[in-house]
Amino acid sequence: MPTSLTIPALLDAYRAGTLTPTALVEELLARHARYPDHAIWITPPERERLLARARELEARGMEGLPLFGVPFAIKDNIDLAGVPTTCACPAYAYTPAQSATVVQKLLDAGAIAMGKTNLDQFATGLNGTRSPFGACRNAFDPDYISGGSSAGSAVSVALGLASFSLGTDTAGSGRVPAAFNNLIGLKPTCGLLSTHGVVPACRSLDVVSIFALSASDAQQVFGVALGEDAADPYSRPAQPHGFDFGAAPRFRFGVPARKDLQFFGDAESAHLFDAAVARLQSLGGEVVELDFAPFVDTARLLYGGPWVAERYQAIRAFVDAQPEALFPVTREITLGGAKPLAADAFAAQYRLRELKRICDRIWKDVDCVITPTAGTIYTRAQMLAEPIARNTDIGLYTNFMNLLDYAAIAVPAGFRGDGLPFGATLFAPAHQDVPLLHLAARWERSIDRPCGAVETSPAAESPTVAYAVPSGQVRVAVVGAHLSGLPLNGQLTSRGGRLVAETRTAPIYKLYALPDGKRPGLVRVPSGGASIACEVWELPVSTFGSFVAGIPAPLGIGSLQLEGGSTVNGFICEGIGIDGARDITAFGGWRAYLAAAGTD
Amino acid sequence: MPTSLTIPALLDAYRAGTLTPTALVEELLARHARYPDHAIWITPPERERLLARARELEARGMEGLPLFGVPFAIKDNIDLAGVPTTCACPAYAYTPAQSATVVQKLLDAGAIAMGKTNLDQFATGLNGTRSPFGACRNAFDPDYISGGSSAGSAVSVALGLASFSLGTDTAGSGRVPAAFNNLIGLKPTCGLLSTHGVVPACRSLDVVSIFALSASDAQQVFGVALGEDAADPYSRPAQPHGFDFGAAPRFRFGVPARKDLQFFGDAESAHLFDAAVARLQSLGGEVVELDFAPFVDTARLLYGGPWVAERYQAIRAFVDAQPEALFPVTREITLGGAKPLAADAFAAQYRLRELKRICDRIWKDVDCVITPTAGTIYTRAQMLAEPIARNTDIGLYTNFMNLLDYAAIAVPAGFRGDGLPFGATLFAPAHQDVPLLHLAARWERSIDRPCGAVETSPAAESPTVAYAVPSGQVRVAVVGAHLSGLPLNGQLTSRGGRLVAETRTAPIYKLYALPDGKRPGLVRVPSGGASIACEVWELPVSTFGSFVAGIPAPLGIGSLQLEGGSTVNGFICEGIGIDGARDITAFGGWRAYLAAAGTD
Repeated sequence: MPTSLTIPALLDAYRAGTLTPTALVEELLARHARYPDHAIWITPPERERLLARARELEARGMEGLPLFGVPFAIKDNIDLAGVPTTCACPAYAYTPAQSATVVQKLLDAGAIAMGKTNLDQFATGLNGTRSPFGACRNAFDPDYISGGSSAGSAVSVALGLASFSLGTDTAGSGRVPAAFNNLIGLKPTCGLLSTHGVVPACRSLDVVSIFALSASDAQQVFGVALGEDAADPYSRPAQPHGFDFGAAPRFRFGVPARKDLQFFGDAESAHLFDAAVARLQSLGGEVVELDFAPFVDTARLLYGGPWVAERYQAIRAFVDAQPEALFPVTREITLGGAKPLAADAFAAQYRLRELKRICDRIWKDVDCVITPTAGTIYTRAQMLAEPIARNTDIGLYTNFMNLLDYAAIAVPAGFRGDGLPFGATLFAPAHQDVPLLHLAARWERSIDRPCGAVETSPAAESPTVAYAVPSGQVRVAVVGAHLSGLPLNGQLTSRGGRLVAETRTAPIYKLYALPDGKRPGLVRVPSGGASIACEVWELPVSTFGSFVAGIPAPLGIGSLQLEGGSTVNGFICEGIGIDGARDITAFGGWRAYLAAAGTD
Repeated sequence: MPTSLTIPALLDAYRAGTLTPTALVEELLARHARYPDHAIWITPPERERLLARARELEARGMEGLPLFGVPFAIKDNIDLAGVPTTCACPAYAYTPAQSATVVQKLLDAGAIAMGKTNLDQFATGLNGTRSPFGACRNAFDPDYISGGSSAGSAVSVALGLASFSLGTDTAGSGRVPAAFNNLIGLKPTCGLLSTHGVVPACRSLDVVSIFALSASDAQQVFGVALGEDAADPYSRPAQPHGFDFGAAPRFRFGVPARKDLQFFGDAESAHLFDAAVARLQSLGGEVVELDFAPFVDTARLLYGGPWVAERYQAIRAFVDAQPEALFPVTREITLGGAKPLAADAFAAQYRLRELKRICDRIWKDVDCVITPTAGTIYTRAQMLAEPIARNTDIGLYTNFMNLLDYAAIAVPAGFRGDGLPFGATLFAPAHQDVPLLHLAARWERSIDRPCGAVETSPAAESPTVAYAVPSGQVRVAVVGAHLSGLPLNGQLTSRGGRLVAETRTAPIYKLYALPDGKRPGLVRVPSGGASIACEVWELPVSTFGSFVAGIPAPLGIGSLQLEGGSTVNGFICEGIGIDGARDITAFGGWRAYLAAAGTD
């Protein structure tokens, strides 16, 4: 048996023949039996169904299945064909004939659906206690809450019962349980993962989320699960992402001002958050302090305003007919949604627009933001004593995210003295999922402990799966007046350009000072060429056209060969341009030539 | 006195010294006196205020004022500092200290605010009869409705009392009165013109609209009035526009299927619409028939669904306190908005999402759509007899527009035998305002009668004002395998590329067949060059980066000189590329070379 459930470890073991899906299923069934009191499952792993699936995969073979034999858990508000969907409300249960779009995509990629997991009823809550199937227990200390609403989905992965799991995230349900169970929790950009076959909480805000043992695993699952879906009116195509701060040597990140940070008396978590900020700095991040008040104001809108009416609308006929079928606190919240008027809903949407406009201003100054995922954690007893107030506490840093249309990823961020994990969340504008995943991957590689509560393997890169999140950036190599600090560099920076590498060309070029004295021309030659100093810049595709249009003859953009042999867009020169130009190849670069000319 | 109130005619007259703002004001006051019974104004032109403004402008001079001395009317739900805003409800009236953002921009550009115009109360209606200040009269036949809700704004321009006017358009209030009074009515993309200082109807949908005597005038005013405004949460920046179908020799346009067209028994209007479709074909348009049912379904949502709650919310405190202050039909509609629940509002928004997804599919097949602006026109008596049903009739083609986030322009489209005008509407996706304006300009130049009811001057180009609607397209000249029908042309068409010109380079190039035999290299030479056949293609900036990235050495994109001397991005070739290449300049182009080679 493999000791690791990360996707690359499993695939390696299958490929090596040291593991079969059947053997994995047997092992997971045995592990499952160790946690009879954790209230993880609503439909637990079923031996017969799982073994049938394992045999099916074994007959099929690994070819073309990027998630072959990878076990995953499904929050019980997401349809799995032939298995009841309960939303933790037995009276509501139905058995779907079809799986949700995302589930079907994962199954089609070879994954094994282990079972359906416990949740705060109708995904209303962030704590994991609001279920008639029992309060889900934390993977590190069963006296503590698991977080929710995707409670069992998180705990199943943390305890080694699945490689990854699907949750949903409207208010923070895909992030809070990640923090409380030491996991990666990807809350994708709204609309990228179909919600067709998912019981809505707030249909305009719901997303399907991913719990995983590494950022790379989360990215792999994200890549398989995403895609526009005509059956989901809130579905939208992934747009090209912007600056890939996650892969860049330097980036800027926001941190809430000290006055806006709340840890509810948990000094250890406060200290762990400071360490998280320092970790991000160590990865190349430059701190920018933010006024977090408008984010907190936005967060309050979610339960304080008419969005609760979406929760009522989602199960309106059911709750009107059988209010007693709901868990008491869930009933109280949901029926609260029957009160506001349409006029109130529109007024709140106006207010949200105002707040989003204010919040969005930060993106001029930062590439991403770090916050605690939750300021502290509570015992189940504390939560049950004050179910609404304590829930509000743990949503402080999460409730605003979907209202503002941001992408977010929860990452592990160390442990308190009592062994409970602390988590941080990185967030960025919509469609910046991939840069966030890249940053999370660097983050976890900087930590010496694996994700979850039992995983033994450090984070490793999953084999890449082809998926359709194109970069919205273009790279261009510059060799002359566009270099950092030189006169035309502003043509890059004013277009959102960011320096991504200082390097040299392959040794196949000559460099000429053009007759105007202001620009060099780089000319590829059959022999006698040299390596020329250059910088690689990244520009948004939206501004690349105007950049190119502004390049006067004899220069243009062609393809340049860099040292090491890679090719990149870069400045080339028409042959006519070097008539009367001075060969300055010997200087090795424009900057060196300028320096020498200055001291001539 | 000038006989034309179009902007270029006025500016020419001011520049020539044949007109002064004072003389213009005197003339317009005299004209105003001719229409005492048209119910055009709520605050009519005031001699003293207007003469003071004229003197102010005369002292200031024309320099830097693109709308110097241009008179405009303002719908009385838009603030003009120091003048009451009534919304056609005297009890609601207030006197603002500041002008609305758009009004201030126009004043800052030198325009003269003539007065505040009559409207369907609180901008609720499309007919112009719902006002305690009287039912506004049609500029062509006073027995007929003016259209509304921007009633007086349209009639004032049609009758030569202003060069242009501001309306608002939530359901069609900026288009229906344009149609009924033979005007251009620009309904810009939502959010481009600030609604700060405008009394909301449906705040999430309202736009400020422009009535004008020509498309060029409308574009001029649009350019001055637009701009993101932090004070308006629904404001957004103009995005670069896409394919400029309005300026292209060929484009594709949609027409509702015959079964979906309704003219309410008005055979003449049906005939005029057929002629309008033929006119668009004569401008280079290729017809695509559309299933219009989802647009009609969307239109019904506006008054049939909870968006009416926005109208209630907009004046909630006022109407709750003084319901009797409202015009009866307006009260009935507005108080209807107090009934739906927030849950209903969300449900309707879900439905709208579904419908938008369906409607948006047409944009794969067409660049714009033409519809009647209204299927017919009614007398004031007919309208008053059935105020809600008749209003619904004339909104059939307009109510869906803002819900679907499209840009639209109403254009004159001929006259019935009784002398009443018919109008057509061209619409396109959000941010395609400029292509729509360009198409409307070509449209009106194809008609021999000026806009309005008294204007004598044919449509002319306004002097261009610099304004910030960038093109989102990049032009690139191709000379080889990317030409139409050749092997690499798919690299352009698959990226949304459209052919915009077949032309030749300046006679300064040599063309070489590169050694691979598949591509030519265009090389600029100091002497002995020739003119080479080329095509100019337009690509969205969003795809230009990947196009450039896919060009292998020795080719690249630089700047090319065309015959006539203009410069465009185009294919260039590194000098090294022509080592061993064959000079094929004599063929005059790659296609001619291929043809000759094929017959060798």
